Amino acid sequence: MNLTAKNSITTVLIIFVLVLFSSNLMPDFFPEERARPFTYQDITRKIMNVGLREGKAYDILKKITSVGPRLTGSVQADEAVKLIQQEMQNLGFDRVFLEPTRVRHWVPGTMMEAQVISRILGTQSLSICPIGGSVATPPEGITAEVLEVKSFEELHRLHEKAKGKIIFFNRAMDPTLLDTFRAYGEAAEQRVRGAVEAAKVGGTTALVRSLTTSLDDYPHTGLMRYDPQVPKVPAVCVSTRGANLLSDALKKDPSLAVSIKLDCQEFEPVISHNVIGQITGTEKPEEIVLIGGHLDSWFLGTGAHDDGAGCAHAVEALRLIKQAGLKPKRTIRAVTFMDEENGGTGGKDYAQSVNRNDETHIAAIESDRGGFVPLGFGIGGSLQTVKHLQQWKVLFEQLGMYWIRAGGGGVDIGPLAKQGTVLIGLVPDCQKYFDFHHSGRDVLEAVHPRELELGAIAMAVLAYLIAQEGVL
Amino acid sequence: MNLTAKNSITTVLIIFVLVLFSSNLMPDFFPEERARPFTYQDITRKIMNVGLREGKAYDILKKITSVGPRLTGSVQADEAVKLIQQEMQNLGFDRVFLEPTRVRHWVPGTMMEAQVISRILGTQSLSICPIGGSVATPPEGITAEVLEVKSFEELHRLHEKAKGKIIFFNRAMDPTLLDTFRAYGEAAEQRVRGAVEAAKVGGTTALVRSLTTSLDDYPHTGLMRYDPQVPKVPAVCVSTRGANLLSDALKKDPSLAVSIKLDCQEFEPVISHNVIGQITGTEKPEEIVLIGGHLDSWFLGTGAHDDGAGCAHAVEALRLIKQAGLKPKRTIRAVTFMDEENGGTGGKDYAQSVNRNDETHIAAIESDRGGFVPLGFGIGGSLQTVKHLQQWKVLFEQLGMYWIRAGGGGVDIGPLAKQGTVLIGLVPDCQKYFDFHHSGRDVLEAVHPRELELGAIAMAVLAYLIAQEGVL
Repeated sequence: MNLTAKNSITTVLIIFVLVLFSSNLMPDFFPEERARPFTYQDITRKIMNVGLREGKAYDILKKITSVGPRLTGSVQADEAVKLIQQEMQNLGFDRVFLEPTRVRHWVPGTMMEAQVISRILGTQSLSICPIGGSVATPPEGITAEVLEVKSFEELHRLHEKAKGKIIFFNRAMDPTLLDTFRAYGEAAEQRVRGAVEAAKVGGTTALVRSLTTSLDDYPHTGLMRYDPQVPKVPAVCVSTRGANLLSDALKKDPSLAVSIKLDCQEFEPVISHNVIGQITGTEKPEEIVLIGGHLDSWFLGTGAHDDGAGCAHAVEALRLIKQAGLKPKRTIRAVTFMDEENGGTGGKDYAQSVNRNDETHIAAIESDRGGFVPLGFGIGGSLQTVKHLQQWKVLFEQLGMYWIRAGGGGVDIGPLAKQGTVLIGLVPDCQKYFDFHHSGRDVLEAVHPRELELGAIAMAVLAYLIAQEGVL
Repeated sequence: MNLTAKNSITTVLIIFVLVLFSSNLMPDFFPEERARPFTYQDITRKIMNVGLREGKAYDILKKITSVGPRLTGSVQADEAVKLIQQEMQNLGFDRVFLEPTRVRHWVPGTMMEAQVISRILGTQSLSICPIGGSVATPPEGITAEVLEVKSFEELHRLHEKAKGKIIFFNRAMDPTLLDTFRAYGEAAEQRVRGAVEAAKVGGTTALVRSLTTSLDDYPHTGLMRYDPQVPKVPAVCVSTRGANLLSDALKKDPSLAVSIKLDCQEFEPVISHNVIGQITGTEKPEEIVLIGGHLDSWFLGTGAHDDGAGCAHAVEALRLIKQAGLKPKRTIRAVTFMDEENGGTGGKDYAQSVNRNDETHIAAIESDRGGFVPLGFGIGGSLQTVKHLQQWKVLFEQLGMYWIRAGGGGVDIGPLAKQGTVLIGLVPDCQKYFDFHHSGRDVLEAVHPRELELGAIAMAVLAYLIAQEGVL
């Protein structure tokens, strides 16, 4: 067979190369390095031992989630800022400080109701919630017939039928994609742009199937955007079971109506804070390796995987480095950003502030894909940088991480790209992530202590390696 | 640094080798194979699409666990046999049949009580259960002082203090090992041989810390062995929280007593069955690729991960192959073995029966490590065989599986080794496995449908590849 024969030769050659450069068989090939063999191997092992024996990532996450959901502008978000600042101070980091960022203050309200009303089928409830940033319905709600579509193209084709209707975007995430983030990306436009596309064709509301791979009764919210040129209509997400119920009902009674009530509201932006702690570098303190997640969440659940886990990863990684007695050459800085979800102002303001201070961020590692078993790192840098980091692949195999590949970054660290920072994303297993994402299921109990700790260990090891060796 | 420089060169050479043999750059290197490029890639994708779009692994597991725990010799185990046979018939496999195996009939009883009794600390309950195969205590129970040890060596050193005491084996699984199965293996002797070692030094009972990485109130049972030369004393496992409680209490009151009552009982062995279904090969039907798990479980929980998942993997893998319209050259046979836990008679009798029928099992793939995300395959064959199978590595990367390595097998398929069968173990992520293993927590809800399905897909792809291409 094609693959068989070719890979056989490839495998043999790879094994040959690996054997050739294994230290046991070639003891004198790099004689100058024999004085301190396997140093990074030892350090990796040490960080693993500290983390797996007496890890604190889950305790940190427990504190973060204890304040509740942490929507930007909320009292809980402010509480989380204070709590993490205190936590970093208690852990004895070299420097702990806040940086202000102006964040959106939208509140979801308490009215989130929807019914299917059919003369044939009777009345049935749908489990819904507003999409983040939606306008409210009138107090009496919106009641209208429903046009179901699977894509914007279909909506445009059917635009003559759209006027006055609730536009029901019912495209599911593609379950056949192993990378659930890709499946999410391919379906997310319905939630982000649904209200604008609905309004363009005269629709009164966007009703969007929740972006999740599971079939359940939880609505999954998230970001949406309005267009100043287009009237604002309410945007609502419905649980996947609710979406199936509605779709089935429409087949039996195309003239059924859906009634929706929301009382969400937008207030003036407020000042919140990124929380920053660091271990200052011994040789190049002005060069920074950032590790971070975001402290804000949506209003459902307690943002445990998204992104309490990332904050716990960052703070715990810094603690592990300190606890293991390591003194990095460059500064390693943990940042819990305020506002990834609702405009990304935390990351933007951080990058601005960084520019003001003439700091050099050589690399930034973001964890914003949940607290599951870490599988690899995605590198948003040049091929040279990717290759440079791939030299440490063997170290991460100890952690069960088998790849370091091109393509990575994150919303919080993205604005640092302008100054040439290498952006890196921690990539955990993602098969279950969207079961929880942006929903009431994203709570502490959905996170496993050992899996969470492994992510922190991975961040600690990579941050330390970069702090010692640079990015190229 | 040592690793850095060496791996840099290694990486560059590996990339060079990979590029050299990539089909795009070397279109004419294997010209005879260009007529049917990427066939197995397509087939892998097809099996993935069927499984991820309309997988049945979870439904199969739901049926298996619906009968309850499936201890060998129990009514539930018999029920499970009938249910799986019916399931295989409903799925339209080419041949479905039972093979008898004589299994142990030990019953755990209903009395599983233990108390710590201390004049200083009062009385506290411990969460315990018998270790599988233990003798009962006298009806009034055993009440004795406690000797805590962490190893058999420590017990031998302290043997003078052991007489008449309950021997408390309290060595925890090593949390720093990424491979939790290795940590289990290193601690399991306490459970398997604890009663014999306790009795040898005059102890009255073996009280063993549960083998789990989690700290909870669930006792985790498992297999133990008696020695005909040594008196039989009861063997009990205690939850990890209970073990910590007892250990702490002993520090405060070394003369405290523990009281234990068990009414487990051994009956005469009974006849049960392995359940077998197959898709018969089109070219070499007498050559068999076996895929299997075991249907029996311990008496706590419903054996969802251990090993309902493995049975669901095997049956679903066969269904996927059929559903994808594939006609394998060799026979692919799914076997749900009876009795992996309690002596392994199912596997032994299957291998015997196979010998009688002059069948040739070229390979056997066992799934008995839970229903989590599959990470790789362990191959218990020659280096040549390992290399042969590694040729398909790139296919499994589509499934997120990054390694095929030496070392693998399983209790059920082990007896086939004598006839030269290549033994293969499916290796899923194992970070959470021992939270559930052999305990009341191992229930359907602990298994994730998508993760379980990925395991079935992996088994289906590898079984089909071997059915087409052989093992060497």
